[in-house]
This record gives sequence, structure tokens and C-alpha cells, in this order.
Amino acid sequence: MTSDTARLAGAAAMSTGESLRRIREQRPLVHQITNFVVMNETANATLAIGALPVMAHAPEEVAEMATVAGALVLNIGTLTTEWIDSMVLAGRAANAAAVPVVLDPVGAGATVLRTRSARRILDEVAVAVVRGNAAEVATLAGRPAMIRGVESVGDGDDIGDLAAAAAAALGCTVAVTGPVDAVSDGRATFRVANGDPLLATVTGTGCIASAITGCFAAVNRDQPLRAAVEALVALGVAGEDAALQSRGPGSFHVALYDALYALSPDTIDGRARLTEQ
Amino acid sequence: MTSDTARLAGAAAMSTGESLRRIREQRPLVHQITNFVVMNETANATLAIGALPVMAHAPEEVAEMATVAGALVLNIGTLTTEWIDSMVLAGRAANAAAVPVVLDPVGAGATVLRTRSARRILDEVAVAVVRGNAAEVATLAGRPAMIRGVESVGDGDDIGDLAAAAAAALGCTVAVTGPVDAVSDGRATFRVANGDPLLATVTGTGCIASAITGCFAAVNRDQPLRAAVEALVALGVAGEDAALQSRGPGSFHVALYDALYALSPDTIDGRARLTEQ
Amino acid sequence: MTSDTARLAGAAAMSTGESLRRIREQRPLVHQITNFVVMNETANATLAIGALPVMAHAPEEVAEMATVAGALVLNIGTLTTEWIDSMVLAGRAANAAAVPVVLDPVGAGATVLRTRSARRILDEVAVAVVRGNAAEVATLAGRPAMIRGVESVGDGDDIGDLAAAAAAALGCTVAVTGPVDAVSDGRATFRVANGDPLLATVTGTGCIASAITGCFAAVNRDQPLRAAVEALVALGVAGEDAALQSRGPGSFHVALYDALYALSPDTIDGRARLTEQ
Repeated sequence: MTSDTARLAGAAAMSTGESLRRIREQRPLVHQITNFVVMNETANATLAIGALPVMAHAPEEVAEMATVAGALVLNIGTLTTEWIDSMVLAGRAANAAAVPVVLDPVGAGATVLRTRSARRILDEVAVAVVRGNAAEVATLAGRPAMIRGVESVGDGDDIGDLAAAAAAALGCTVAVTGPVDAVSDGRATFRVANGDPLLATVTGTGCIASAITGCFAAVNRDQPLRAAVEALVALGVAGEDAALQSRGPGSFHVALYDALYALSPDTIDGRARLTEQ
Repeated sequence: MTSDTARLAGAAAMSTGESLRRIREQRPLVHQITNFVVMNETANATLAIGALPVMAHAPEEVAEMATVAGALVLNIGTLTTEWIDSMVLAGRAANAAAVPVVLDPVGAGATVLRTRSARRILDEVAVAVVRGNAAEVATLAGRPAMIRGVESVGDGDDIGDLAAAAAAALGCTVAVTGPVDAVSDGRATFRVANGDPLLATVTGTGCIASAITGCFAAVNRDQPLRAAVEALVALGVAGEDAALQSRGPGSFHVALYDALYALSPDTIDGRARLTEQ
Repeated sequence: MTSDTARLAGAAAMSTGESLRRIREQRPLVHQITNFVVMNETANATLAIGALPVMAHAPEEVAEMATVAGALVLNIGTLTTEWIDSMVLAGRAANAAAVPVVLDPVGAGATVLRTRSARRILDEVAVAVVRGNAAEVATLAGRPAMIRGVESVGDGDDIGDLAAAAAAALGCTVAVTGPVDAVSDGRATFRVANGDPLLATVTGTGCIASAITGCFAAVNRDQPLRAAVEALVALGVAGEDAALQSRGPGSFHVALYDALYALSPDTIDGRARLTEQ
């Protein structure tokens, strides 16, 4: 992956720094209905980048909360039928209020329940961005996938092609994360090569990517492609900074929040390893 | 906020160091029915200060657990109706056993469900201390409040007046936390100016304040005002110590447990920035 | 506890290093139905040692997930009747697929619900390893126990005798953890003296021990005694390494993941403080 950004007509319209500045000024509320494993982590990542997290899943309150939010993030990592019902309720309320919805289909392909639930949400809610690993996205796009639990273990075909095909199939922006990330809305496709291998050693960094996508979507309501790309640039750059402070996954995890908090709107665009495919 | 403690008749009866010593000698059990976001964090804070945490929410066991606890902490951060039912069951059992109850009304004012649930608990359980942010407490006291998700975003009227008014309205001790904290039982009102701005960058530090209030209440069963004030002194001093070891919210979060664990009963009272209003 | 390993006929068959190497090569999936307090922590410990964690508790998917897993870990720390139902479903599916099951009976003895639920799982599922503290294991073995919440507070009779008696009573391998650990299958009994007192200052290190036991069981399917002993050696050695990087429970907790990740298969057997009783 080169860091050549010269030929990027689409990328020229992006500025992670500008969005980051808006997140910190507006402090959008990012409503998250997510899994038990990462609630603390995605809340802290949301706070660190400058937005306000709120976790709320009761059917009596999700519509009310989603309506006033800047973005809604749905994550099926420890799903039950009741939680999926709440996600659909929240998603519809978000749709009615023009609040962008991010879906993280954790483990789609691993069990029938997960695949069906992710599809149900996509059927019943207008999703702005799907953010998943290669196996999860391939499953939703109807392609062969190799998944073990919630980890993608296939070497995968081209990740950019996968993102583009999934975006076309699902009718929304799709972000596929891995050693290199790809984001597509079915027309334009971008690759983000920022990051560090330590990101794969901490549970929930994919979920954190989805939460941060929500933060960027909240300040780019009509530009889900831009939001998804910039979120991955921001997390990737933070991962690079965190790796410099780390002795392993534990210290990397801690340093990641410090790095998200310290991201500079002034320098981040110069550090983006972003290419249009 | 000055650190003048000369005129504090009420404060003279307090000694955070003495209570801290008792917590570490008695190791009280602090039963917490709390939210999914912070369970690990409040458990670790409880352990770090010297008490024993236990999380239990099943209706079949909450009364049994609350009865043998030194304090019960109820936190509605990720509430459902079933969890509130369990909180009420536990709270009544605690009341019957003279176990002090701390309520953290997370997000009261943000949704109808949260406001109603906090009020239901206050109606059905004798609460010793309510610990919340300005917006949550204002909501419960029937005052105007500005809340975004679970974060108080109003600049607020005087926090001491708010605590006193809420204490009078609710008939219990009320602790309002923010850049400066205020605690009142409706007669005496104290301000605690310890702490560090980094506390606001980590999710759940308010919930940690409530858990630590439970620890201090367990060794001051008949003195909820004292317990609430001392808990905020202890957390605030630990926050000051942690900030010295921090590069941002991630490392601050980690250092906070180290600092709670290292708090010295011998020096903490001299560091209290405590004034009576 | 001496580190004399000369007379260990049984221990000669063990090699934590060899198992660790297999975990990192095979990356077994470790399905965990566990408590809300430690989900992130046990997932990260599982990843750090080299295996793949997955948390899934919905009745619709637990059998499917357990069947493809390398091991199943059941932990009743924040149990409800519905979660226990799911644990039994998963456990039976694991049994049918010859997937080893580890049970962590958190708080058995503390409430009727916990004791009954642990016994129900032991009645309805063939468990390979029970991993608990002295009070939990004593409760299940029908011996007197002192427990406060989920912490064992008795000084206890001999931990090796307790492990052996419980193994005989329960018909499976039993690991009792504490300042020194004991593991028995009712015939052979081992003591593991690795570790550091800071392990007791962080919530969920017992749950982490159970998760890591699952990792070792996944690569030693027919040798639960070996798996349980080696898991405690690995965690204990990591705890010793982490303590060198720590200023208190917060930094120890972080360093523990770094240390698990850095464990060397080449040197770990030489560091085992393992004796056969």
C-alpha cells in the first residue's frame, strides 16, 4: 500500500482534521447499542476522540435516545433476540430523524442467528455504514467467508473488491477492516493503510472502529463514505502513535485512548495513508 | 475554591483517613447492581480502595446478597425494567437490614424511562445517598436541567444550592459531582474541590464515585453525609495523584486504580480541599 | 512451597511451553459464557495468550458456537436463570462434540442461587475442569466454606486436600486458586506456587485463570489435569513478570496482558514452581 494521495479526486473532498475539529466542537451524542465485551472500550474511545457516548438498550427508551443522537451505532457482538428488537426500534427512530446508523455485524457467518440478525437489521433499517471484518462482510454480500468465532481467518480475495461488491449488494457504504482497510459506497473505493498489527491483539478494536465511524458520521450526516474513511484514518493514526508507547497488547490498549485524545486536526491529514482504488 | 478548612465545624467531625483505615481493616462487601459499561471499573475501584465488590442482579439472589453487604449501590446506567425491579428488591432488603443504599441516577432527565426509574427507586427504597451530575440531580429535584445522553452539559446554577435543594426535596444526602463537587443533607452543605479535569475524559468515573461512596457508607452506616464527602475527597485526591502519571485518558484511567490503592490514611485529610458552605 | 520438581513423575508429562506453542499455532476458538464484569478482560487474556475468544449466550446460537469451539468456559459470576439455561445448552452441545468444558462457579456458597446453579451445571453437563477459589470449591465439595460475596475469606484447610477431595466428589479435575494453587483429578494432585499478590488486587483474575484453562484444554482435550496445571503456571509466570512493571493494581492489570502475550514457550517450563503432592 503506497501513501500516494496525488491522484485522489474523491479523497480531495475529505479532511479528517476538519471532521475531528467538528467532533470536538459539537461533541455529538453517539448512541450505541453494543455488546457486553466492549461497552467500556467503545465509550472511552468515543470520549477520547471528543464525542459523547451513551449506551441505552431498553425498548422503552431507545427511540427517544436515538432521535436526539448525532449517530446510532448497532453492534451485534453479544446479541439476543430482544436486543436485536431494540436495535431495530432504535434504527427506525434514527431513520425518521435522519440520524445516521452504523452497523457492526459481529460474527455474521459464524452462527445462523448472527447472519440472520444482521440481515434483519439491514432489511428493516436504512444503514449508512456497515463496518466489519472480511468474513462478516463477505457473508452479508453472499460471498464465501472463513470465520472462526468472531475473527476473520481467511486470507481473502481483494479487500477493495469485497467492499465495492458489498456496498453494491447492500446499498450502503461498507468498510472492511483488516491489515489494510477498504471503504466503498459502490462507486468510489478507498484503501486506508494506517494502523499497526497490535490493533489485532486487543479485543474490540473493530468495535471501536465502528464507534468512531459513528462519531465521524455525526458530523458528516450526508457523507457516509467520507465518515467511514476518515474514522479509519483517525483510528489507524492513533494506532500508530499508540504502538510507539507499547510493550504488548495491554499497554497498547491503554495508549490507544491517549493517542485518540491527542490526535491533532492540524497534522492528521498529512499522515493519512489513503488511496483511491 | 479555597482549601480553607478553618471554619468547618461539620468537617471537623470528618476524617477520610480514619474511614479509609476502617475500609481496609473491615473489607466491607459492597453489593453493586450497576450498568454494563462500568462493572469492571467500579469493581476494580472498590477493590483498589480496600473493599470487596460483588455484582449480582438476579431477582432470586439480590435480597440475600444485599442483606449481608456493607452497602448497596444502585446504578441505572443501562437499565431495563427487569433490572429496576431487581434494584427495588435489593433496596428493600438493604433497608430491612439497615444496609445503606447509594443511588446513581445515570441519565435521569435524558429519557422518560430513566427519570421515572430513578424516581421509582427513590419512592420505594430509603436511599442514603444520591450521587449524580448536575443535570441528573436537577431533574430529580424538579429543576431545569441540560443533559446530553448521560453527560451534564449545562453550566448550571450554584452546585451547592442544587445539592441542598435536592437533599431537601429528596430527603436524603445528595452529592453533585463536577469540576467542583457539592454534598448536602439539606442542613449542612460541603464543597470538595479535589480532582483533575482528566476525570471527565474517562467514562464511568461518576459511577466509580458512587461505588466508592458505597465503600465509605459501609463503614459510616449512620453518617451518609460524611460518607459521601469523604468518598469524593478520596477519589479526588486519587485523581490528582493519577494525573501526575498520565499522558491522556487511557493512562490516567490505569493510574487511577494505582492511586486509589496507594492512598495514605495518614496524609489524605491534609490534602482534602473541603469547605463548608 | 519449594520449586523442587525432581520427584514429579506426573509433572514430567507436562510441558507448558509445548502447549503454549500449540495454542499459538492452532489458535483455538474458546467459547465463553461468562459474567458482565470480566468479559473484556477474559477475551483479552485469551487473545494475549494466543487463542481466539468468542462470547455468545443466546439460546439460539450457543450450541452451534460451542460445537465448533476448541473449549467452552462457563462462568456464573453475574448469573440469571436464563443464562444458566444457555450454559447448560452449550455444555451439552460441547459434550456431544467432545469439546472440553471448564466451569467457574463464581460465588458458589454466597447465595442459594449460585450454589444451586453451579450444582445444576455439574449435574447436567460433563465438566472437564472446575476452577474456583477455596470457598467456592469447598461449597461444591460439601465442606465448610467462608465466602464474602465472591471472595474466599477463610484461611482454609490444606488447599491440596481440598482439590483432591473435590475432584473425587465431583468426578472431574478441580483447580483451587489462591496464594498457592492446587489442582487434582482425584488421583494426582499438584501445587503451583507461581504468581504474585497483585493478582488478588484486580477483579477477574480468577475468571482469567478459567479462560486460560479453556485455552490449554483446547490443545489438551484428553488431559484436563495437565491443562489446568499448565494454565495456572502460565498465568502465574505472567503475573510475576507483570508485577515487575507495576506500581499498583491498575498498571499490574495492564502489564498482565503484555506478559501473557510475551510468555516464552522456551523458558516457561524452567520457571514453573510446580510440585506433586
